[in-house]
Amino acid sequence: MADLIALDDPRDERLRDYTDLRDVQLRTTVEHERGIYIAEGEKVIHRAVAAGHEPKSFLLAPRWLDNLAEVLERTDAPAYVLDEKSIERVTGFHVHRGALAAMHRPAERSIADVLAAAKRVLVAEDLVDHTNIGAIMRNVAALGFDGVLLSPRCADPLYRRSIKVAMGAVFSLPWARIEDWYGAPALLREHGFTSYAMTLADDAVAIDAIEPAERAAVIVGSEGPGLSEHWQREADHRIIIPMAAGIDSLNVAASTAIACWEFRPGRA
Amino acid sequence: MADLIALDDPRDERLRDYTDLRDVQLRTTVEHERGIYIAEGEKVIHRAVAAGHEPKSFLLAPRWLDNLAEVLERTDAPAYVLDEKSIERVTGFHVHRGALAAMHRPAERSIADVLAAAKRVLVAEDLVDHTNIGAIMRNVAALGFDGVLLSPRCADPLYRRSIKVAMGAVFSLPWARIEDWYGAPALLREHGFTSYAMTLADDAVAIDAIEPAERAAVIVGSEGPGLSEHWQREADHRIIIPMAAGIDSLNVAASTAIACWEFRPGRA
Repeated sequence: MADLIALDDPRDERLRDYTDLRDVQLRTTVEHERGIYIAEGEKVIHRAVAAGHEPKSFLLAPRWLDNLAEVLERTDAPAYVLDEKSIERVTGFHVHRGALAAMHRPAERSIADVLAAAKRVLVAEDLVDHTNIGAIMRNVAALGFDGVLLSPRCADPLYRRSIKVAMGAVFSLPWARIEDWYGAPALLREHGFTSYAMTLADDAVAIDAIEPAERAAVIVGSEGPGLSEHWQREADHRIIIPMAAGIDSLNVAASTAIACWEFRPGRA
Repeated sequence: MADLIALDDPRDERLRDYTDLRDVQLRTTVEHERGIYIAEGEKVIHRAVAAGHEPKSFLLAPRWLDNLAEVLERTDAPAYVLDEKSIERVTGFHVHRGALAAMHRPAERSIADVLAAAKRVLVAEDLVDHTNIGAIMRNVAALGFDGVLLSPRCADPLYRRSIKVAMGAVFSLPWARIEDWYGAPALLREHGFTSYAMTLADDAVAIDAIEPAERAAVIVGSEGPGLSEHWQREADHRIIIPMAAGIDSLNVAASTAIACWEFRPGRA
């Protein structure tokens, strides 16, 4: 059973994992250094725990205790209890979703682990926006893809905003980072994957004219610069979603959704 | 040629169209009452003017004048020039995209006008989020749909955030509101459209098993409650995007993108 510890000072040193939750740069550094991430709201906390993640501590207002009773019973992590005004002073915003938990980051999966039994993976290059990473994780999971691989510069899927947008898909969908990004095309090939790079290049093949390989990796890049030259050159296929004339391209979450839909497993 | 008027007081009454741009509720009311919307950044302003919209005034820092010279030459609207710090005091945030313009809202299109020559339209029910409305306008335009119809409660496509996400598609894509929402199914039928309601209902037909009619309207509802009972009952067809087991549904922008892709004009 969690220790319930009533606090009244928002500056209490024990609350330091929860300070300034709106400061993206600060949080990104702090959470990686301390090996934690923040789960916000009882629904997300339940999902994180169900995925086997371990709470380090909780930050709760008294009225949120009940809904979290089951989780609190099964852990030894301390639960700090403050009034809502003081919680707002710690975090820097009104936490209307209720409880917060600082969770231990799970051990990172290996790339081999993500790819082992996978037939369909999404590979993302330099998507620095947490909303986009979250949206993509959600869509990819819903469309039956088996995993996601991220370039080193991609945003953190375990950042609070990513988790919220992903509706928890970051807990269930296997993902890993590829540190040696330059070697990624060869790596996928070694694992038996055929790679399909999403591009706006004139000579790319329309996505609906493609018969996906048994094991297929779809590669997406950021909206502005698009996919790197290296990937455009090294991918087995270059594919495009045909679009209406004179219109800016789809946003990356939408084009990823369409690509995953076209590459869905078991498609007739 | 626009009158360049140097101001130094952020509280100057002539700047009242630009105050508190981050206050969504206030802005929504103010902009409708005054018949304006805010175009942010030179790219958006150029697109708005290219679409035939009339500026009411501009708010500029001196260094943004050059990039807007062409637009300023062709209008009689006043351009208020302030230093960037003062502009921040007016608007409530740092305007890093440069120039702002208060634009006269264009006359609303009639529903008949949107539907007249259209083969594919998207109909949105109660999407209250500006980001979702913007994303949907962008995706629908890119995929070759001809127009959008909105329920009365949908967010404003001409709100600053919607325009930004839509990348200007709100200026080029014809759209209108259906005030008599209850009569919408009959209205579409009268205009010769077959309606396809996106739903999560068990007995809905998989979207890839559908042969779209020559004139097709795709109806989407909000993520939480989903499409209203009325529409679910009255639509000619109920369709679903088959999803992986145990996963929350796609977000509404992604499911709209996939639906529009499947219903794209000229699809083989």
